[in-house]
Amino acid sequence: MIETVTLVGIGTGNPGHLTLDGQAALQGASTILVPRKGAGKDDLAEIRLALLDRLGVAARVAFFDYPARDENLPYLERVERWHDAIAGRWAEAAGEARDVALLVWGDPGFYDSTMRIAARLTQPDRIRVLPGITAVQALTAAHAIPLNTVNGRILTTTGRRLREDGWPEGAETVVTVLDGDCSFTALRGHGLTIWWGAFLGMPEQILDYGPLDEVADRISATRVAAREKHGWVMDTYLLRKAP
Amino acid sequence: MIETVTLVGIGTGNPGHLTLDGQAALQGASTILVPRKGAGKDDLAEIRLALLDRLGVAARVAFFDYPARDENLPYLERVERWHDAIAGRWAEAAGEARDVALLVWGDPGFYDSTMRIAARLTQPDRIRVLPGITAVQALTAAHAIPLNTVNGRILTTTGRRLREDGWPEGAETVVTVLDGDCSFTALRGHGLTIWWGAFLGMPEQILDYGPLDEVADRISATRVAAREKHGWVMDTYLLRKAP
Repeated sequence: MIETVTLVGIGTGNPGHLTLDGQAALQGASTILVPRKGAGKDDLAEIRLALLDRLGVAARVAFFDYPARDENLPYLERVERWHDAIAGRWAEAAGEARDVALLVWGDPGFYDSTMRIAARLTQPDRIRVLPGITAVQALTAAHAIPLNTVNGRILTTTGRRLREDGWPEGAETVVTVLDGDCSFTALRGHGLTIWWGAFLGMPEQILDYGPLDEVADRISATRVAAREKHGWVMDTYLLRKAP
Repeated sequence: MIETVTLVGIGTGNPGHLTLDGQAALQGASTILVPRKGAGKDDLAEIRLALLDRLGVAARVAFFDYPARDENLPYLERVERWHDAIAGRWAEAAGEARDVALLVWGDPGFYDSTMRIAARLTQPDRIRVLPGITAVQALTAAHAIPLNTVNGRILTTTGRRLREDGWPEGAETVVTVLDGDCSFTALRGHGLTIWWGAFLGMPEQILDYGPLDEVADRISATRVAAREKHGWVMDTYLLRKAP
């Protein structure tokens, strides 16, 4: 019966992204739940286990497999039911353990469902969240650019929403996450500059940037090639109106 | 003559926010530039020095004082001239040092001018950025809430912009930074919920949340009292349309 859940943001695949608090939480954990397969990113279990190994973590590692999503349901309902099912898998994997910890890619508060799944199993005040470096932060750090312009606004959106919305009216800086479809290719002709990165923070990191109209095809091709080579790819990008 | 600048995001005053990469960069630095006074946050130099001490950093610490801003200039020009002047102070403090490091509050890429100042002294490819935990991440972690709704958009803005813009049309989640004036008080009557925090990640941390119309005055009063007690206050907040 799970009572407390500790969610440790581990950053984006660079062991150096882990915070000192995150390190201490993992070293002090008794049971750590690790997703094994079905997430579509088979490298990630290995990265998590390598991190635990590197830190000399003594906790019991309890594996769980992701359930399938019901693709027949409408989007939001499909997500809800999937989170319910994952919560069931956590409970099963935890067994008798009352306190469990999870390694969360990026930051548990940023486009990640782990906190919502934890809320199905325990009270909000029994969920401890340790923030971690997000792919967006790894992107701006790698390009050595500020995320915002001076006194500017930032709109963070998903690939799905960017496709629906087009270039948002009045937007200055737009950051896109969870985009499996290079949705930026539909935004040519707006005078945008793109800063793009894949496998951010990892040894495989790839960066590109330039005027969107000129580099969109090149980035799309790079992404296809990277996915073929590695079997998966995670990328994010920032779009800004040219000054 | 400064050649390379390493910017280490240190998070928001919690030594446990530092990343392992950040720790290594500080331990490997030869010269670290530390602002001493004039930033209006006198505790921050002490926090930086305490962190260096705790890490056993052997670098030379070179102090610089912030210059005054010319309040007669228009906002953007005032910021530009101020950054020019700070760059001059860095160069003076660095002396013969070629490689300097700075401890940057939060993340160097997120509403921080350090990267823009560094760009006045060296080439972009000689600026190394190590991301850090932002106050926004510390806020969502402390409240154990996700920053975004499922597939939702996030608008990040400043207090100044929020006062100019009002509640942005079509906004779902709005995060405000750099707000010295409780600009949320002007947004009553929109059916918003606020999650607020001050001194996030620090021992002095204060949290509050609730329906904005009900809690706005309480939060304003808490902020005034905190500033009186500590001599300064840094806060941030998230606003969301009630579901």
